[in-house]
Amino acid sequence: MKIALECIPCFVRQAFEAAALVTSDHKLREWILRETLSTLHEKSFDTTPPSIGRDIHSIVKTLTGNNDPYARVKRESNTIALNLAASLKDHIKNSSDPFETALRLAIAGNIIDYGQGDRIDEKTIQHSISQCLNQPIERDSIEELKEELSRASNILYLADNAGEIVFDRLLIDELKQYPVSLAVRGRPIINDALMEDAAAAGIDKVVEVIDNGTDIPGTIIEECSPEFRERFAHSDLIISKGQGNYETLSDSPHKIFFLLKVKCPVISRDIGCREGDIVVRKKGRIRS
Amino acid sequence: MKIALECIPCFVRQAFEAAALVTSDHKLREWILRETLSTLHEKSFDTTPPSIGRDIHSIVKTLTGNNDPYARVKRESNTIALNLAASLKDHIKNSSDPFETALRLAIAGNIIDYGQGDRIDEKTIQHSISQCLNQPIERDSIEELKEELSRASNILYLADNAGEIVFDRLLIDELKQYPVSLAVRGRPIINDALMEDAAAAGIDKVVEVIDNGTDIPGTIIEECSPEFRERFAHSDLIISKGQGNYETLSDSPHKIFFLLKVKCPVISRDIGCREGDIVVRKKGRIRS
Repeated sequence: MKIALECIPCFVRQAFEAAALVTSDHKLREWILRETLSTLHEKSFDTTPPSIGRDIHSIVKTLTGNNDPYARVKRESNTIALNLAASLKDHIKNSSDPFETALRLAIAGNIIDYGQGDRIDEKTIQHSISQCLNQPIERDSIEELKEELSRASNILYLADNAGEIVFDRLLIDELKQYPVSLAVRGRPIINDALMEDAAAAGIDKVVEVIDNGTDIPGTIIEECSPEFRERFAHSDLIISKGQGNYETLSDSPHKIFFLLKVKCPVISRDIGCREGDIVVRKKGRIRS
Repeated sequence: MKIALECIPCFVRQAFEAAALVTSDHKLREWILRETLSTLHEKSFDTTPPSIGRDIHSIVKTLTGNNDPYARVKRESNTIALNLAASLKDHIKNSSDPFETALRLAIAGNIIDYGQGDRIDEKTIQHSISQCLNQPIERDSIEELKEELSRASNILYLADNAGEIVFDRLLIDELKQYPVSLAVRGRPIINDALMEDAAAAGIDKVVEVIDNGTDIPGTIIEECSPEFRERFAHSDLIISKGQGNYETLSDSPHKIFFLLKVKCPVISRDIGCREGDIVVRKKGRIRS
């Protein structure tokens, strides 16, 4: 999915918010904003949002010397989510369809997305949980996903954000009987999940966890590590979480189930749904 | 009031929205956005938001050849407001304090502000009316304004937006016994009120209407016409509507009563109130 022009103001907002998170120095914040304006002015817009997102957040990292501006935010999100995990596990266990409930909760966790601008606290997450447990969902797609899971020999689950990854753990617990691996980002980018976040969620004790080698808030295959590229190519089913992975993989020929909560008008137009909707959407075919 | 860094993404958003309003040509929209990014990159931020706002909207006008991108929007706002006017007049007449009610309604009309991004329809305006009629208001300031009105020999009322000006007419009807003139912008800028909007509201039949000679979404005295500057200097009481006039006059030594609905975090910080609040705030002293 290519960027839309309305992504441009959103990138400038992201630069401001990241700068504000990492420094109180007004001059430094202004420098970051001016570099962002200049970078956006010169960039081709014939690319995906996460590609430009990486460039914008690189400015913040380079000019502040802070390679992980969202480190604290990510720890906080993991803590909030871990505090909720036990009761959510019970909820799954006692539900009439544990798989669907775990899937809904994994999508609920996708609210923890700092690319979208709002500060996420426990109240926001609780609200997302109660919404996602009751919202309309594409049941045919869930049934199709169940079938594909039972047939697949290599399943790759692409994580999105810290905090959210604790919710992914709930779904992965329901997938344990299948040959699943989980992939996180290779280096810090916004609040996207890294190896340490997968470990905080305890996922490394359940399934294999790999990283994609990049600091892109999505999955641009050509820029990923050779190891990740090979794993991706040999997976016959991909489960992709969140907007950034959707934005970078929506045109992939691979068989991918996208799970996400729609949080921006550009994505909602591309998918053909409304902001706030929860999405289980299959795209692509078996192996490219 | 100087711009804050968080005004910068807001300007980029304004450029996108104005471009989207005036042309469906993607290449032209992109050109407008790129020029906006470049202009903001080069500008000093040591200025007021309306100064930069004028520059950004000039880009839209120049590149599209459309000198009044919000012409249709302004006509629509006037029509919606005029359709409500008769019942609002009755409401004022039957209220226990017609002056305060008219003042609240004038502030309610300040929701019709296309610099803030949301499309304004009748429902939005009705919502603002019922909010503003019941929100807390600075009663001491209202009493002070009444006193100042009775003492003033030259009162200048600075209008803000089209549509809103119909609500200003309601307040001006309550001020008819005082020596009031109304000032609008000199040339099109966003949805700010011009002479033709004052005429649509019928204000030119009640009080004298002048324009300030500029295309700035606020009042930068040094850039106004000599005639306006003289009128401003000789007024012993200014009534200033909206955010743009506040942003450009908040540091003026003149005695000014600012009437506005707070619609952005930068203004709310500067005034010391919350977004959504309605404000009647006196600043400055008699004559500079």
